[in-house]
Amino acid sequence: MNTFGLKFKVTTFGESHGKAIGCIVDGVPAGLKIDQDFIQNELDRRKPGQSSLTTARKESDRVEILSGTFEGISTGTPIAMVIFNQNQKSKDYNNIKDIFRPGHADFTYWHKYGIRDYRGGGRSSARETAARVAAGAIAKLMLKELDIKVMAGILEIDSIKSKNIDFEYAKISEVKSLDKKVEILQKEAVLKAKKAHDSVGGAVLVQAINVPIGLGEPMYHKLDAQLASAFMGINAAKAVEIGNGIEATRKKGSQNNDAITKNGFTSNHSGGILGGISNGDTISAKVWFKPTPSIFKEQQSLNIKGKEIKYKLEGRHDPCVAIRGTIVCEAMMALTLADMMLLNMSSKIENIKKVYSK
Amino acid sequence: MNTFGLKFKVTTFGESHGKAIGCIVDGVPAGLKIDQDFIQNELDRRKPGQSSLTTARKESDRVEILSGTFEGISTGTPIAMVIFNQNQKSKDYNNIKDIFRPGHADFTYWHKYGIRDYRGGGRSSARETAARVAAGAIAKLMLKELDIKVMAGILEIDSIKSKNIDFEYAKISEVKSLDKKVEILQKEAVLKAKKAHDSVGGAVLVQAINVPIGLGEPMYHKLDAQLASAFMGINAAKAVEIGNGIEATRKKGSQNNDAITKNGFTSNHSGGILGGISNGDTISAKVWFKPTPSIFKEQQSLNIKGKEIKYKLEGRHDPCVAIRGTIVCEAMMALTLADMMLLNMSSKIENIKKVYSK
Amino acid sequence: MNTFGLKFKVTTFGESHGKAIGCIVDGVPAGLKIDQDFIQNELDRRKPGQSSLTTARKESDRVEILSGTFEGISTGTPIAMVIFNQNQKSKDYNNIKDIFRPGHADFTYWHKYGIRDYRGGGRSSARETAARVAAGAIAKLMLKELDIKVMAGILEIDSIKSKNIDFEYAKISEVKSLDKKVEILQKEAVLKAKKAHDSVGGAVLVQAINVPIGLGEPMYHKLDAQLASAFMGINAAKAVEIGNGIEATRKKGSQNNDAITKNGFTSNHSGGILGGISNGDTISAKVWFKPTPSIFKEQQSLNIKGKEIKYKLEGRHDPCVAIRGTIVCEAMMALTLADMMLLNMSSKIENIKKVYSK
Amino acid sequence: MNTFGLKFKVTTFGESHGKAIGCIVDGVPAGLKIDQDFIQNELDRRKPGQSSLTTARKESDRVEILSGTFEGISTGTPIAMVIFNQNQKSKDYNNIKDIFRPGHADFTYWHKYGIRDYRGGGRSSARETAARVAAGAIAKLMLKELDIKVMAGILEIDSIKSKNIDFEYAKISEVKSLDKKVEILQKEAVLKAKKAHDSVGGAVLVQAINVPIGLGEPMYHKLDAQLASAFMGINAAKAVEIGNGIEATRKKGSQNNDAITKNGFTSNHSGGILGGISNGDTISAKVWFKPTPSIFKEQQSLNIKGKEIKYKLEGRHDPCVAIRGTIVCEAMMALTLADMMLLNMSSKIENIKKVYSK
Repeated sequence: MNTFGLKFKVTTFGESHGKAIGCIVDGVPAGLKIDQDFIQNELDRRKPGQSSLTTARKESDRVEILSGTFEGISTGTPIAMVIFNQNQKSKDYNNIKDIFRPGHADFTYWHKYGIRDYRGGGRSSARETAARVAAGAIAKLMLKELDIKVMAGILEIDSIKSKNIDFEYAKISEVKSLDKKVEILQKEAVLKAKKAHDSVGGAVLVQAINVPIGLGEPMYHKLDAQLASAFMGINAAKAVEIGNGIEATRKKGSQNNDAITKNGFTSNHSGGILGGISNGDTISAKVWFKPTPSIFKEQQSLNIKGKEIKYKLEGRHDPCVAIRGTIVCEAMMALTLADMMLLNMSSKIENIKKVYSK
Repeated sequence: MNTFGLKFKVTTFGESHGKAIGCIVDGVPAGLKIDQDFIQNELDRRKPGQSSLTTARKESDRVEILSGTFEGISTGTPIAMVIFNQNQKSKDYNNIKDIFRPGHADFTYWHKYGIRDYRGGGRSSARETAARVAAGAIAKLMLKELDIKVMAGILEIDSIKSKNIDFEYAKISEVKSLDKKVEILQKEAVLKAKKAHDSVGGAVLVQAINVPIGLGEPMYHKLDAQLASAFMGINAAKAVEIGNGIEATRKKGSQNNDAITKNGFTSNHSGGILGGISNGDTISAKVWFKPTPSIFKEQQSLNIKGKEIKYKLEGRHDPCVAIRGTIVCEAMMALTLADMMLLNMSSKIENIKKVYSK
Repeated sequence: MNTFGLKFKVTTFGESHGKAIGCIVDGVPAGLKIDQDFIQNELDRRKPGQSSLTTARKESDRVEILSGTFEGISTGTPIAMVIFNQNQKSKDYNNIKDIFRPGHADFTYWHKYGIRDYRGGGRSSARETAARVAAGAIAKLMLKELDIKVMAGILEIDSIKSKNIDFEYAKISEVKSLDKKVEILQKEAVLKAKKAHDSVGGAVLVQAINVPIGLGEPMYHKLDAQLASAFMGINAAKAVEIGNGIEATRKKGSQNNDAITKNGFTSNHSGGILGGISNGDTISAKVWFKPTPSIFKEQQSLNIKGKEIKYKLEGRHDPCVAIRGTIVCEAMMALTLADMMLLNMSSKIENIKKVYSK
Repeated sequence: MNTFGLKFKVTTFGESHGKAIGCIVDGVPAGLKIDQDFIQNELDRRKPGQSSLTTARKESDRVEILSGTFEGISTGTPIAMVIFNQNQKSKDYNNIKDIFRPGHADFTYWHKYGIRDYRGGGRSSARETAARVAAGAIAKLMLKELDIKVMAGILEIDSIKSKNIDFEYAKISEVKSLDKKVEILQKEAVLKAKKAHDSVGGAVLVQAINVPIGLGEPMYHKLDAQLASAFMGINAAKAVEIGNGIEATRKKGSQNNDAITKNGFTSNHSGGILGGISNGDTISAKVWFKPTPSIFKEQQSLNIKGKEIKYKLEGRHDPCVAIRGTIVCEAMMALTLADMMLLNMSSKIENIKKVYSK
């Protein structure tokens, strides 16, 4: 169950403190230029240790392509990528070896599998998202061929909302904020939490432009459903909204319906999706991240022997996972769209003839 | 792409005004008593025409089981169920034949498929959810064997919130309200919208109790991700929250983490899911429905020839789809849990030995 | 696990003596004319009771389309088809109710599921293949749009080989023989076995012409592997050969390799498949069917209580299942090719651009 | 499409002369001892360069486990394995760079993908089977926990048949022959072909013992169909028989049916499979391999520009791929059975209760 996608498929592997993490991207059409620098750059955007606002762990995250390309071009065969782990301090985790950290997957992995790689959360660590970002980079390269662009930024941190949405600014913002004006407040909230050995939550706005009409496969692989799954599956995500989401549910139908004109829709409350299918407008979603469960205050928990204990976590963790979550949201959006693009190709007999006509 | 689930699988078919709708439920374990009255009862809970608050369409929704049982017991072979359509007034739709109704799938189906069964929305009609409810009833029968119970009710209509959560009351409430005290206000909001030829949105709380620890398959079929997909795929759903959802993202980590004791978790902000796996606590989610796009006010739109038009919809529609959405949310929760239960069975070598030991 | 195909998908249901059998065909591109007469005609070709050589059971096999078409054209939504069962004589099976018929699935269904619909073999009956033929007819309609044609005939019955391969003759032959000259001998072998209350086996040659180069998805959905699975899954099939098959393995490489010229391959030992991908030549396979296990001689067996018994089967059965198997082989070939055609569409970035360019 | 299996899943990657080949094995139950020496040993059994009868290429084939185990035990997370390529002589292939080798996938890969890694056949090389063998070794480790054993040997080379079936002897035989008496003749046939710059075909008998009753998922993932797909997908395989296969089709029903007694079946013509489900008897199949297409005689072909050419292949190739194919057949049998074991777990409600009862 470590595969995402049905036609543009990614299978990831690896634990936080194992030898390596990585993925196999299967279903990439042949003939695509695989720009390794771009993939590396995406990984660099995600990697920790870049500011005081994210974890101090340094992960060099050098990606290596093992297969699937020939002279820099995709061959239609699976593209395997590996990132060897470095700078792991497994001993940091010795003290939590037998402990179920509250808010973490320790408890559930232990009960589900009867065994647990406790080092840095093992498989349940957000480190796994590096593999998603690498695969997402390839999806972005494919989308770029069709002028589709994916972007994300911070909409909210610790209840402080971004109001002026500026994706260009988010790229250079230390907290990936969409709003230059509130960025400083958002940043301060993170630092304050960090100082208090605590953490804060946040929300990410993720969008895609130039998406063709028709992506999404009713009934059970609708575009919004696939995006919901893609985003909710990211570590610490607790809510997903499409378009105006909850806000829309508090309007009247007459206010919420997007009127249709010759020049397109007069508004985009729907987030670019009608009946589970893209309508040609900007695809827009919000992803909500809980405050990092790894905090440095004393907490009440159990150990694996069922004994109640108090403990204090040590180590290095992001005080706000939403920040680096922006890059992961982009990756999941890109992977979902790439998959939906391939799936949609056979929607009409006319498309089939286009491909097979000589 | 009309199949939901990986091991407990449902494939649905049918259009609003075609001959029939129905489903094949594949993967139902053999030896389960298939109580047809229960299935019919679930369909009756969903069916329209039961009050002034839902559509006046009368759908008798008689389910017929065509296969998969022998003397009332499941045989392990696919269970096909069919509901023949009746009381369709296709002529109601003649006037929208060439029109893309705002907020509807008309526009996207037309562009994706190049053809559209305009009668009552065709495949994109919420009528398809009857098939989900029939399948969900079988999932509930299986879950019942393990004492798992699924329930849902209205959390909010037109911004009016249910505060006292009472699932027993929701069962008998005309608007499926979870709160007897606000029910009347919620009801009035619906009627008011109806009178104004408009519609309102709402939210559903859906929960499951007695769910064993261990359900959910990281990385890409986590329980929360699967639920997000299951719920977001319901017609008119625009947002999904797990546990405290957005509210959780505005807390500190120290406030949001659920402490663990010998007697279980001291709170359930997580909604019963950690790392994508059930933790033994109540599974809890909120599903947000937009106001029904079918309203009876004049609207701006396009016809299929690209001409701008003004039109007024006729016909019969729920002014608040969230109400009947409660039953569909239960069905999707049940289907998801049933699927995850089967998938989880091979998590440990010890389980395999249990099944295969003689 | 009752679904065949990955993109052009068929899910079948139904037992021999239940209410109905049928299927949902999902993934049919929109815009295809669904010729119901053609589908019925295919079913008529398969149906029993047409000659002294097949079972005397009369199955009218009237197919009804429940969904997925609008004004005779596919809409891209699932096409459900149902065939209500008639002329079942369940009482014929009362005497085998508790008996495991040798060579049949009775024994394994009982042990796998702990329950068994004994009437006519229930789900394991070859009656299920009517659903495949109905679905296969839709696949054929799609293939016809691209001039691809599928055909099958009897290559061998009871060791009597067809030498002059004539698919046109097979169509009108009572035993579907490919060779007019040996037909009479093949027919006599069947009748002789029937008279002796016994049965004979046989082989089917199945081919497809005008198949484009490129179908088949290495590594694990190669065209030959998919065909092998499709054919071996037919009731009573015991062997599958691609191209020259076993004969090829007894040649030298220099004899077996098909030389390539400007005008194509100089021979077709490969059966039109290289590296699991169609090479543009005729796709050719042989499918071998065991003698019908339902014979009317006394046999040694067990009952469900573990008691050894002798029994004689009653009822009506084909003395040679390979004959009607020809139509089923055609259906499985058509379904496999249709699926592979849709899957192959995204093999190159160039195809994607073709579909999405405006 | 590089994934094999539905629940015990293997995704492979890698080209013959790329950086590495490998796989991710997903769905391995937690708690299984992963014996790396055993995996390496299986790879060593497959690797070339071990005798004059297989290719002279030396591939050290050192496997490295990158994830999915903790202290030598499977954790339920994906097990990634990598084998870095060494000893590749890519320059051997410069002369075939633009040539479609007869009998090879060069032609079809070129047309399907529009690009081709010509070095050693790239992805279509039998080198990919090393990844299958590594994954198959893990499947074998799981099967061993339930006393299931898989074995294979040479049944025929160049028409010379093994008559006395001895799997123990096959293990030590240079040509993996099942029959000590004919081994020398089989060996001579291979050497003779090699000397003549030609190649020979052969057949493999592959069996599994102690397989529980109930494996196989009708209708479309029957055990025999899955095995047919698994074996036919191996490079150079052209035919698959289950049990007595073709021979069975030339018998009468009364001869071919396996009678059932208290002590089991009196014969095993069925190959241990009835109705697509294992019956508790030995699972038995035959896999037929064409003569290696890589021969060193002059051949007629085309180059990628469409020009007819004559050429002679250089390099190092097995004169009989069936020999090393025995190990690959074992791997595919093991993978198929492991997958079917996990899939079968939910066949009865009683099994579900076993797993979830506290």
